[in-house]
Amino acid sequence: MKRRYKMQIAYDGTPFSGWQRQPHSTSIQELIEKALTILLKEPISITGSGRTDQGVHARGQVAHFDTSTPIEHIPTLLVSLAALLPPQIRIQTLEMVQSTFHARYGAKKKTYHYHIWTNPIQCPFQFPYTYHVYTPLDMDLMAQAAKKLSGTHDFTSYCNQGEGKNNVRTIYRIDFALTSDGFVVQIEGNGFLYKMCRNLVGTLLAVGKGKISLDDVEKILSKRDRKAAPAAVPPHGLTLEQVIY
Amino acid sequence: MKRRYKMQIAYDGTPFSGWQRQPHSTSIQELIEKALTILLKEPISITGSGRTDQGVHARGQVAHFDTSTPIEHIPTLLVSLAALLPPQIRIQTLEMVQSTFHARYGAKKKTYHYHIWTNPIQCPFQFPYTYHVYTPLDMDLMAQAAKKLSGTHDFTSYCNQGEGKNNVRTIYRIDFALTSDGFVVQIEGNGFLYKMCRNLVGTLLAVGKGKISLDDVEKILSKRDRKAAPAAVPPHGLTLEQVIY
Repeated sequence: MKRRYKMQIAYDGTPFSGWQRQPHSTSIQELIEKALTILLKEPISITGSGRTDQGVHARGQVAHFDTSTPIEHIPTLLVSLAALLPPQIRIQTLEMVQSTFHARYGAKKKTYHYHIWTNPIQCPFQFPYTYHVYTPLDMDLMAQAAKKLSGTHDFTSYCNQGEGKNNVRTIYRIDFALTSDGFVVQIEGNGFLYKMCRNLVGTLLAVGKGKISLDDVEKILSKRDRKAAPAAVPPHGLTLEQVIY
Repeated sequence: MKRRYKMQIAYDGTPFSGWQRQPHSTSIQELIEKALTILLKEPISITGSGRTDQGVHARGQVAHFDTSTPIEHIPTLLVSLAALLPPQIRIQTLEMVQSTFHARYGAKKKTYHYHIWTNPIQCPFQFPYTYHVYTPLDMDLMAQAAKKLSGTHDFTSYCNQGEGKNNVRTIYRIDFALTSDGFVVQIEGNGFLYKMCRNLVGTLLAVGKGKISLDDVEKILSKRDRKAAPAAVPPHGLTLEQVIY
């Protein structure tokens, strides 16, 4: 009898080709599947809550898998997984769940954090995880733009490769949390289109730099055209923090 | 006329061969000297508060240099240095000082932090900067051992390549600061011999694991023989936090 397991995963995305398994490059999904296949002695495939791009990090990615191998002691399996996986990937929790649980279709809410450093001199320990912005930013304007982007909209303009699909999503909140050397853009939504977070942050920064106006933000949304919106920010500032079911 | 400048430097030691310039490998000192030589248009050599080994990090390394080139605007020079240096090295502050200031001979007190992770599953974001200890540790015994090592002693047993030198140093404090997933050993002293911090932490961990007794700690000190003490811990957990003048 197969049993379903849910796991929470943290990873530093820097050295990998992204979450999703693909030929000719090393994905996070593939490495976890290989480790589980060795330890559970049967072919294991895992289903994540969604992809993360090359260079994007996670503290709270969630995935599930089915296995007919009984897992007798979960802490021991976690330590064995840590021994087989590169140190940039760690399975943090594992629990048996009902067979109706689905990491992707059951995800109700996701939180992404985008880390921005605004001090002129960046910290050597933060550079792999934060995007350095040199130009001054109007945080008040950015907060107003964030309000315009929150809510239920067709986010086609903020989605790469999104033509002809249902691109309506709900953003519950976009908050700015100040840090000692910059800030974190916290984005919570019911789902995110391809590159949507990085496109949204790119637009918020364009507003903060005075390159586009608050009116432009609404116009871009209504155009439903990716080419209407400013460029995306780079992947290394982004972390998938939490997936809620 | 030459003027002397003091700078505070942070670095992630992972990709370099250590602080000190040496042939056939890339040192932090060499990279900073090359960047300053380009920007100040004259050969610059810098003097650090002391070496850090390959793989050791710093948040508060201090160095000085002399230059006859007037530095008109320090923030601009810092940004230019950041552009020339790899992102793992950042000059954080620069100030003109009296010509009597000496980064090495004037150092009165140094603080090192050694980061230890004790949770079974390490965080992917912390692994380059923390040493993972799997075995249970008796923190009370370690605190008692730390008291025995504090004070003024001949630290020959805790010094690599220290034969025939004056190896008397004073440790002002060894504290254990708990973190969410382990602890940090904070060591403050008037000076540190070659690999002394890592040897001291190695001995503290040997006590914590029950491999040696508190009496052994005193015996090792009095033997004045490096071979008497347990192995050093690896460099990547160590950070030079602060140098006080």
